[in-house]
Amino acid sequence: MRKPLILVTNDDGVMAPGIRALVEVADKLGDAVVVAPDKPQSGMGHAITINATLRVNKMGKQNGTHFYSTSGTPVDCVKLAVHEILKRTPDLIVSGVNHGSNASTNVIYSGTMSATIEGCMEGFPAIGFSLVNESIDADFEASKVYAEQIMKVVLQNGLQKGVCLNVNIPNLSTREIEGIKVCRQADAKWSEKFDKRKDPGGKPYYWLTGAFENQDTGEDTDIHALQHNYVSVVPVQYDLTAYNSLKNLEKIDFNAG
Amino acid sequence: MRKPLILVTNDDGVMAPGIRALVEVADKLGDAVVVAPDKPQSGMGHAITINATLRVNKMGKQNGTHFYSTSGTPVDCVKLAVHEILKRTPDLIVSGVNHGSNASTNVIYSGTMSATIEGCMEGFPAIGFSLVNESIDADFEASKVYAEQIMKVVLQNGLQKGVCLNVNIPNLSTREIEGIKVCRQADAKWSEKFDKRKDPGGKPYYWLTGAFENQDTGEDTDIHALQHNYVSVVPVQYDLTAYNSLKNLEKIDFNAG
Repeated sequence: MRKPLILVTNDDGVMAPGIRALVEVADKLGDAVVVAPDKPQSGMGHAITINATLRVNKMGKQNGTHFYSTSGTPVDCVKLAVHEILKRTPDLIVSGVNHGSNASTNVIYSGTMSATIEGCMEGFPAIGFSLVNESIDADFEASKVYAEQIMKVVLQNGLQKGVCLNVNIPNLSTREIEGIKVCRQADAKWSEKFDKRKDPGGKPYYWLTGAFENQDTGEDTDIHALQHNYVSVVPVQYDLTAYNSLKNLEKIDFNAG
Repeated sequence: MRKPLILVTNDDGVMAPGIRALVEVADKLGDAVVVAPDKPQSGMGHAITINATLRVNKMGKQNGTHFYSTSGTPVDCVKLAVHEILKRTPDLIVSGVNHGSNASTNVIYSGTMSATIEGCMEGFPAIGFSLVNESIDADFEASKVYAEQIMKVVLQNGLQKGVCLNVNIPNLSTREIEGIKVCRQADAKWSEKFDKRKDPGGKPYYWLTGAFENQDTGEDTDIHALQHNYVSVVPVQYDLTAYNSLKNLEKIDFNAG
C-alpha cells in the first residue's frame, strides 16, 4: 500500500521550529512534503497574492522530506502545492505547529488556520495545530504526541465535507495534559490598544497592541479546555452563513427601508 | 437627535469610485467618516499588521465628510477608526462598494468582508457591499439605491449580535433589479490555475489565475439570487464552529489514534 501523502505548511515560515515538529510526525505517518512561506506570515488571515507574482524555491530533501519555500502567503502555499508542486493529490494537509494560540476568534486572523481552511475548500482533510507558546524555543514534544494521535485518526476516518480542525495544545508537558476535548470556538476577542509614537521627524505612527479578553463563560469552549489542561479540537467550517438569523432577516422588509 | 455616525471603509483603497458611492449614501443617512487603505488591498482576507508600524493620513473634509487613509489593511482601518480616529462609537460600519463580487466563498478572501466582520467582532452593526463588476468605471447607481435601503433598515433595527451582512449587487440598472433576497452562501469555489512564466533570467515565476465554479444548485444561495437579478443579502457570522459535526467528532476516540 502506498504511504499517504501529507502536505505540511505553516505561517511562521519554513525555518520555524514548529514546522519541523510537524514534519517529524508527518514523516512517520506517510510521505511528507513541505510547502511553506519563505518568511513569517503571522496575522495574514486568508490573504492571497493576486497583484504580484509568486516564486517557488526548491530547497532540497532533508531526511526524506522535500522542502519548498514560496514567496506567498500560507493560502498561496496550499494553492501552489496542490496545483503545481505535488505530484499526486494529498491525503492530508497539516498546518503549524504555530508558535502561539489560535484558539477562539484568533482563527479569523490566523495564517495557520487560513491555510487549513484553504485545504478544506480544496476538498482535502486538513488540520491546523497551534501551541500556546509564542517563543522561538517553545517545547514541541507534547505537540508531536497529540499531532500524531489526531493525524492518525483523521487519516483513518477522514473528515466531514466542508469541515477542518483547529487544534490548540496547552503549553504543558505530555504528562501534564489531561487529554483531548472537542469544543466550540470561544466568543473572546482582542481588546486593542494602539501604541502611538512619534518618528524622528515628529510624525505619529502606531503599533497595534492589545490583550485577549474572554467573556465567554461556557464550559464547552476551546479556551475553557486549554485552561483545564486539555488539547482543544474545534471543527471549523468555511460556510460563514449565520443560519440562525436567516429566518429573522427574511421577516424584515428591506424594500420598506 | 444626533445623526448616526457611519464609518465607511473598503479594500480597493480610499481613491476607488466604489467608496465614493457609499460615502454619498452614508452622508445622506448620517455623519460619515472615511477610514480606508491608502492603496488597493484586494484579496487581503483578514490580514492585520502586527510586525510593522501603521500610519494614518488625515486627508481633509469633502462635502462635510472627513477622509482618513491608512497604510494598513481593511481590518487595520476598522481597528484604527474605532480605537484612535472616531470621536464617538459608530452606529454603523459599512465597507465597499467593492469593485467585484464577494458572493459565495469569496467572502473568505475578501478584504471588504473582513473589514465588515471585524466591525461585527468589535460589536457594531456592519454591512459589506459589493457590485458584480470589477471595472474602474462601473456604474454604482443601483448600488447606491440598494445600499441606502439596507442601511436604513439596519440603522432602525440593528443586527443580531455576532452577525453582519454580505450584500452583493448584480451589475444591472435599478429598473432591471428584481429586489432583495436573503440567502445562504453558495458552496462554489475558485478552480485555480497558475500561469507559469520565465523571468528574463530564465527563472520560473507564477501568476495566480482561475475561474469561479459553482456546483451548488440550491435555489437559496447568493449566486442563484444574483443570477436571477436580485440583490443578495447573506447574514455572516465569525463563529466558524461547525456545530453540525461537533456530535460526530465527540464520538471519535482521539486517544485511540
